[in-house]
Amino acid sequence: MQRRDFQAGLIAALAAALSSPATAQTGGKATSAHEETGHDMSQMPASWTGKEQIGMLVYPEFTALDLMGPQYMFASLMGAQVRLVARSRDPVRSDTGVVVVPDMTFDECPKVLDILFVPGGSVGTLNAIRDDATRNFVAERGAQAKLVTSVCTGSLLLGAAGLLEGYRATSHWVTRELLPLVGATPVDARVVRDRNRITGAGVTAGLDFGLAIVEQLRDREYAQAVQLLAEYAPKPPLNSGTPRSAPPKVRRMMTDMFAGFMQKARVALEARPQRK
Amino acid sequence: MQRRDFQAGLIAALAAALSSPATAQTGGKATSAHEETGHDMSQMPASWTGKEQIGMLVYPEFTALDLMGPQYMFASLMGAQVRLVARSRDPVRSDTGVVVVPDMTFDECPKVLDILFVPGGSVGTLNAIRDDATRNFVAERGAQAKLVTSVCTGSLLLGAAGLLEGYRATSHWVTRELLPLVGATPVDARVVRDRNRITGAGVTAGLDFGLAIVEQLRDREYAQAVQLLAEYAPKPPLNSGTPRSAPPKVRRMMTDMFAGFMQKARVALEARPQRK
Repeated sequence: MQRRDFQAGLIAALAAALSSPATAQTGGKATSAHEETGHDMSQMPASWTGKEQIGMLVYPEFTALDLMGPQYMFASLMGAQVRLVARSRDPVRSDTGVVVVPDMTFDECPKVLDILFVPGGSVGTLNAIRDDATRNFVAERGAQAKLVTSVCTGSLLLGAAGLLEGYRATSHWVTRELLPLVGATPVDARVVRDRNRITGAGVTAGLDFGLAIVEQLRDREYAQAVQLLAEYAPKPPLNSGTPRSAPPKVRRMMTDMFAGFMQKARVALEARPQRK
Repeated sequence: MQRRDFQAGLIAALAAALSSPATAQTGGKATSAHEETGHDMSQMPASWTGKEQIGMLVYPEFTALDLMGPQYMFASLMGAQVRLVARSRDPVRSDTGVVVVPDMTFDECPKVLDILFVPGGSVGTLNAIRDDATRNFVAERGAQAKLVTSVCTGSLLLGAAGLLEGYRATSHWVTRELLPLVGATPVDARVVRDRNRITGAGVTAGLDFGLAIVEQLRDREYAQAVQLLAEYAPKPPLNSGTPRSAPPKVRRMMTDMFAGFMQKARVALEARPQRK
C-alpha cells in the first residue's frame, strides 16, 4: 500500500464518518467527504473500510453516557452501520433524562450483528433483565454476533441472557461482584476481552472500550486518528475514579447508596429464566 | 454540619439524581430515592442541593458526546433542572447519527439560566452560527446566564454570539486558532475559566469540564462521589489524544482533513452579524 493511498484513505474515511453521518450510516458513497477534502474515496485501502452491522441496545432508564462514548467511536468506523435498537421505535428516556429515538425495533435488527452492544443503568437494567422481549433479543443476537459487548452494568444483562457463562468479564465496580451469579469470572480492569466478549467497566470506561474496539477492527493508526479527533487526553480534575483512589468515606457513601440496588439486582439475576 | 447529615445528604442526592431522573428533573421530593436508601431527604445539608436551571443547546449535527459527558455530570447535581433546548421540539440528529428529543424550545427556556451550555460539531456548528434564531438565543441567554459554557467547537458559536469578546477560552485543538476572530484569547488547556465563561477543549474534554463544574457548584467531596460513580479513571489504550502526543503523520492527516472546514469556519465567523 502506498503511503499516499493510506493517508488519503484515512482522511476520507474520517471525513465521511464525521462530517457526513447520513452517508456513513447508509454505507453509500461519501460524496460530501470527497467534496470537502478533495480526496478520492476510490484510493482508500480496503482495510480502512468495513461493512459492520452494529446494534446498540437502548431500554428505559439506560445510562446515556454508557452508550454515547462507544457510539462516538463506532461511528468513526468508515462503512459501519451503527444503530440504536429498542423494543419499539418510541423515544426512550435515559436515567439522566436524555430522550433518544431508536433507529429500529428488535424485529427490524439484522439477525447477524458484527457488534452487539449493551449499555448499563441501575433500576432500568434490572427491568430490562426481567423483560422477556429484551432478554431474548440480547440472547438471540448475542448467540450470533461476532462481538458481544457491554459497558457498566450492561454486563449483568448480557449475563442474564446467558452470554457470559464461563467468560471473564467486568462491570461497574459496584456490581462486579455480581458476575459470578451469571457464571462469569469478574476481572478488575477497565476493558476485559475473553474470546469474542468485550466488557467495559463503569460509565466512562466506554471511551477506552470503544477506542480499543476501533483499533481491533481497523488498526493502530486509524485508532490514533480517532483519539486525536476526540481530543481524548483525559485530565480529571480530581482523583477519585476508582474505589482504591477515592477517599474511604466517599467509597463508603457509594456502597451504602447502592446497598438496596445490589439486593434487588441479586434477586433479579437469580430469578432470571434459564434458557435451554 | 454533622458528618451523618453530610453523608446521608450525599447518598440521597446522588440516589435521587441517578435512580430517579424524573423526580430530579421536576425538582419534586425524591421519594423513590428515600424508599431505596432509607435516608431521609430532610437531613440533607442545604449546600448539597440547588435549584439550578441548566439549558443545554442542541442543533442539527451537534456532536452528541460533547453534550453527553457534561449532561451526565450536571444531572448528578441534586435539585438541578437539566434540559435540552432547541429551535423546536422536533427530534434532532447528531453528527454521529444519534437522534435526541429536546425538552423545550428557545421560547420555553427560562430567561435566566444558571448554566448555558453549547456543544460543538463541524458543519452543523457553522449552520448554527449562521442561523439567526440559534445565534440570538445563545446571545440572549448568555447575556443573563450565571455560567456561559461550551465544549469543543461550541466556543465558536458562543463567540459568534458575541459572548467571548475579551475572554480567554478554548475549543477543539483544530479550531482553537479561530478564537481571535471572535475577540477571544485562545488557551491551550482542557478546561478554561475566565470569570463566568467556562470552555472545554475537544469532545471528551466535556467530562473534565463537567466534573470541574460539579465541584464548583457543590464541593470537592460531592464531585469525588460523582467521579467514583462515573468510574472516571480513564485509561486510553493509545496515547494520541493531543497534537503533541499524536504521531506527526496522524496529526497531519487530521489538519489536512479539516482544512476545508477551517476555511468555511473563517468565512462563517467573519460574516456573522454584529450585535449592537
